[in-house]
Amino acid sequence: MQSFEINKSDLLKIQAALDGSDAELKNVLQEYHSSEIAILFEKLPVEARERIINILPADLASDVISEMDEEHNPGELLVGLHPEKRSEIIEELDYDDATDIISQLTEEDQQEILADIDQEDATSIRALLNYDEETAGGLMNTDLIKVNVNLNKKGALDEVIRQSEEMEEFYTIYAVDNADVLQGIVSVKDIIKARSNSLVGELMKTDYVYIKADLDQEEVAKLISQYNLTSIPVVDDNMRLLGRVTVDDIIDVMEEENTEDILKIAGVSEDEELSGNWIEAVKSRLPWLIINLATAFLAASIIRGFNGTLEKLTIISAYMTIIAGMGGNTATQALAVTVRRISLSDLSDKQAYNTVLKEFLVGLINGAANGIIVFLVALFYDKNPMLGLVLFLAMTGNLIVAGLTGAGIPLILKRVGIDPAVASSIIITTFTDCIGFFLPLWLASKLLL
Amino acid sequence: MQSFEINKSDLLKIQAALDGSDAELKNVLQEYHSSEIAILFEKLPVEARERIINILPADLASDVISEMDEEHNPGELLVGLHPEKRSEIIEELDYDDATDIISQLTEEDQQEILADIDQEDATSIRALLNYDEETAGGLMNTDLIKVNVNLNKKGALDEVIRQSEEMEEFYTIYAVDNADVLQGIVSVKDIIKARSNSLVGELMKTDYVYIKADLDQEEVAKLISQYNLTSIPVVDDNMRLLGRVTVDDIIDVMEEENTEDILKIAGVSEDEELSGNWIEAVKSRLPWLIINLATAFLAASIIRGFNGTLEKLTIISAYMTIIAGMGGNTATQALAVTVRRISLSDLSDKQAYNTVLKEFLVGLINGAANGIIVFLVALFYDKNPMLGLVLFLAMTGNLIVAGLTGAGIPLILKRVGIDPAVASSIIITTFTDCIGFFLPLWLASKLLL
Repeated sequence: MQSFEINKSDLLKIQAALDGSDAELKNVLQEYHSSEIAILFEKLPVEARERIINILPADLASDVISEMDEEHNPGELLVGLHPEKRSEIIEELDYDDATDIISQLTEEDQQEILADIDQEDATSIRALLNYDEETAGGLMNTDLIKVNVNLNKKGALDEVIRQSEEMEEFYTIYAVDNADVLQGIVSVKDIIKARSNSLVGELMKTDYVYIKADLDQEEVAKLISQYNLTSIPVVDDNMRLLGRVTVDDIIDVMEEENTEDILKIAGVSEDEELSGNWIEAVKSRLPWLIINLATAFLAASIIRGFNGTLEKLTIISAYMTIIAGMGGNTATQALAVTVRRISLSDLSDKQAYNTVLKEFLVGLINGAANGIIVFLVALFYDKNPMLGLVLFLAMTGNLIVAGLTGAGIPLILKRVGIDPAVASSIIITTFTDCIGFFLPLWLASKLLL
Repeated sequence: MQSFEINKSDLLKIQAALDGSDAELKNVLQEYHSSEIAILFEKLPVEARERIINILPADLASDVISEMDEEHNPGELLVGLHPEKRSEIIEELDYDDATDIISQLTEEDQQEILADIDQEDATSIRALLNYDEETAGGLMNTDLIKVNVNLNKKGALDEVIRQSEEMEEFYTIYAVDNADVLQGIVSVKDIIKARSNSLVGELMKTDYVYIKADLDQEEVAKLISQYNLTSIPVVDDNMRLLGRVTVDDIIDVMEEENTEDILKIAGVSEDEELSGNWIEAVKSRLPWLIINLATAFLAASIIRGFNGTLEKLTIISAYMTIIAGMGGNTATQALAVTVRRISLSDLSDKQAYNTVLKEFLVGLINGAANGIIVFLVALFYDKNPMLGLVLFLAMTGNLIVAGLTGAGIPLILKRVGIDPAVASSIIITTFTDCIGFFLPLWLASKLLL
């Protein structure tokens, strides 16, 4: 199973279904996991979101809403619903999720929503609303199993079973057939709440995320994070259950991958131990610096080629370092955003194209803005408007190159199967140094001499 | 509760206890959580580690070993133990942890260890050893609860209870007194395995990690990651149980904090949405670029100050860009490693001092190595040994400054309570640009003209 990305065909399918009857729409929605619907919501207008939430059963609707990104306003969506449907959905939400969503709303909307729901739930949510979102209180869930220290074994077990009936996510149990082939997942809660003649096969959910044993750990981490899973079953090619990966197993993987990303962007070998000694650090970094030195000689050879220009106009020497440096920083900004984005989810061709286009635009605008400043400095300090024009053009041109390479190179590397973070700032700034030296010198040689 | 860091007094206490009797040592060890002992092991010789493992009960010893960093060779520690103790410890380990540790050993040691343990365990571990460590198979645990689809409610519940007796981490239950004050934690497994007249108060563990509701979410994430917890209880000032934070709640926190780190190092505002449009991106990045432009004018004013030198020796213009650029890259390397290290754990004063010392040394050596290369280029290409000397000295000097500022500035910011990642490459490279321009120009004006 690959992590989900919106592609045109999914979107067209949903949009077509939105033109049809509720039954048709319901049918199409069944093909998607709640977190996939949450992602599709990003591309749908509010009316379409509301219609879908109204069609879905409350438990699924609450999953979708809790998995929506904060920036897409899940709270607003709730406010627009019929109060009865809304209360049903909120009662299905975990308290911490409900609190996060409700906290985004106005005081008035909060009161209205809390007045409608079960008063015990409302009290819990009101209590959680008092904590700062970025603290343990804002993260915590009040849904837990607790027993009195004075209970004996039987009393404690009875309590555990009684309380687990209330708990959304107690424990995932895997339902298999006689050949150990995975058939579905079922929660302890579902078993405890079932009628006594129910079979596991009738209780289980057959819509779940699973993975093959050879899936790369980075993909496993993406899936667990994207689908908000606490565990994910691992199967062989015949769907036989091999084991499960739990969310705590991927914490270390995530930290490792994040460290690698930061180090590679900064031109440090990914396997340098953060707490390693200086010998390891020299071994890990010197090769990158020597590559950088070679590329710096390349950039410097451009300066040598304009020796005549420099002799006549030494002032350009100071300005060209500014333009090259600004290009390096702009490229690093684009690189960091793009590499991080690729790390968190795979980009479709369309998204990749849009990313490069965005960075081109950002480079153009930031280039022009900074270009105007250097123009003004050259005009008022050096009293040289033509020099100002040269610097304006060079700055704009170099920051466009910076945006294009900062976003484009990691995306190209990803397409050809190379780790995009290898496009470290050392590699990217070679381009911005070369162009940053060439443009002012060349333009000066044409326009000023 | 703060995340744990080794300090001198803990280490001295353990070292003193190591000189005493087993009983004394055992007494001192009781003050530490298993993951704290794993961290203390980093500073202890192998014989001390072995003695401690031998003294600890098998379940605690297995916790310590599974929490040791791979680089400190938990496998070697196992090999050195008495086979009986070793088998006891391995049987307490989760299969995935046991596999990770055993996979580091030689084929011969692996066979010897697996021959000694329970054959069912050995078969499971052998199966896991076949998977690549970096795939789902390498991450997964075979310890799970599964039921046949044809079981009815009672059959399924009996199976769940039967299998949970075997499961290490089924679910954490909180033991409270009549006033809801947290007394300890107990697992479902412990309750099921208990004699029927046991009280919860006798079964519970009283050595556990808990947090207050106002703890910053970043600290919560560090604790959960450092202590390998699946959940952590949240209490008020009177130790009354308020709720719990589960590991899946902190996945998003971790991704968020990691994204912020990468963006800030690259000079992008931490709240720029990765998938935001170009308007947001310009708003988030232009202010940093304008700060950079101001600092670049500062660096360029140094060049202007040496106009006379530049007119007589235009070649220095090309070289000074190389020296400034190399300084920028060296500083970014030191910055990335230091910021990442601070993010993952708090550094003691001693560790902070050592980090700066290390980066000074790395800057010195990488500076001298690259300095020799530029010296040779100046000697053979420009036929100017004095120029070579100037460049060697300037390169070495600038890379030392780069190492000192790249490590020192984020550490100082952390000490005064500012986010260390704000020491973005934009700020740090101001230093390396200024020194990178000043040193070659000044040395050239003294030695070459």
